[in-house]
Amino acid sequence: SAVDDFFAGGSAYPLKGRKVIVTAGPTHEPIDPVRYIANRSSGKQGFEIAGALARLGADVVLVAGPTIEHTPDGVTRVDVETAWQMQAAVRKALPADTVICVAAVADWRVDAEAEQKMKKTRDGLPNLTLVENPDILAGISIMTTGRPELVIGFAAETENVVEHARAKRDRKKCDWIVANDVSGATGIMGGTENQVYLITEDSEEAWPRAGKDLVAAKLADKIAERLG
Amino acid sequence: SAVDDFFAGGSAYPLKGRKVIVTAGPTHEPIDPVRYIANRSSGKQGFEIAGALARLGADVVLVAGPTIEHTPDGVTRVDVETAWQMQAAVRKALPADTVICVAAVADWRVDAEAEQKMKKTRDGLPNLTLVENPDILAGISIMTTGRPELVIGFAAETENVVEHARAKRDRKKCDWIVANDVSGATGIMGGTENQVYLITEDSEEAWPRAGKDLVAAKLADKIAERLG
Repeated sequence: SAVDDFFAGGSAYPLKGRKVIVTAGPTHEPIDPVRYIANRSSGKQGFEIAGALARLGADVVLVAGPTIEHTPDGVTRVDVETAWQMQAAVRKALPADTVICVAAVADWRVDAEAEQKMKKTRDGLPNLTLVENPDILAGISIMTTGRPELVIGFAAETENVVEHARAKRDRKKCDWIVANDVSGATGIMGGTENQVYLITEDSEEAWPRAGKDLVAAKLADKIAERLG
Repeated sequence: SAVDDFFAGGSAYPLKGRKVIVTAGPTHEPIDPVRYIANRSSGKQGFEIAGALARLGADVVLVAGPTIEHTPDGVTRVDVETAWQMQAAVRKALPADTVICVAAVADWRVDAEAEQKMKKTRDGLPNLTLVENPDILAGISIMTTGRPELVIGFAAETENVVEHARAKRDRKKCDWIVANDVSGATGIMGGTENQVYLITEDSEEAWPRAGKDLVAAKLADKIAERLG
């Protein structure tokens, strides 16, 4: 590692000694042993961010929902399925200098998972009572002791992207929001490119559409600057 | 193909000239642009069956829900997402000598898919009204003209596997049911092995636990015998 630093000239690892937690992917919320509620997140953007941060020298824990993405080099991966499991894994990984909540966490889960597969009956339809999932991003943002220095949320919107994202930043009490438009026509959800807005305390930047790897590298640089 | 037959001795292609439709994988039923209801089917068993039938010379159309499985050699694949799309694709592929419904079709879908991403509100939870999906297997089984000679359903059960499966056969009016126990402890859903029961008009066979490829090959042989 000292050798690495020598060849890299030191500054190539601006996040050395920094601990970062990244969440990525969807969550799956079971309805019964075979059915679940899911979302279209591929996990790609979060995995790219975890990899980019590791390349800048950070100690990265990636808490991942179900996805076919491969673990980036140098990243410690923790696999989870549900929002509750994701929250527990993030809490276990704390403290950290930065937490980046990229995962598309299900807002709701089914109140009581059925123990056996629900059957069609003549009586009609099963009753799915939804309850709200824990809000992982807000939970970290409002920590009174040991709050990470920089808490970043993602906003996947299908309309009024920037307005919704700024409102989300205020509501969640996080520091930054990375917002993108995931409406069907953009091809972003599940695709390889992203076009995001970085919304901070006092600025809004629209980044050009680019590969998710480039978006990740730019965000990692921004984080390194901020923690610098 | 005449050359193939010569070297294979002819009988290696007992399903030559036979058309088979196989459904496989889960269906995804959209809740809004980013959320959906899904199930844990990997599609592996259905893909193996499609491949095994093609190897016996059948003309195979594989109607596949979202899955990461690769298309078997010699199989014509049609990708779909929802139960309605799957039914339409099967109907379009008819007539056929055999239809094998391996897909884990969602029994229910959300009544009205939201056009925009549903937001959390202070007012509480979104109301998911479920409606029943078309029953693809029963729909084919009760065709009065052009019914395939052999209609086979799959039953994924978590308890009382054989009883539930025989009841399903009676209810759906299909010819055979292949039943398996997908309860969590078996590791069958998403796994590489299967342990099935073949339930016909007048028999029940418990097959030994084996790779999904072997189960597929045996089922393909049984189908060739029956259509023979």
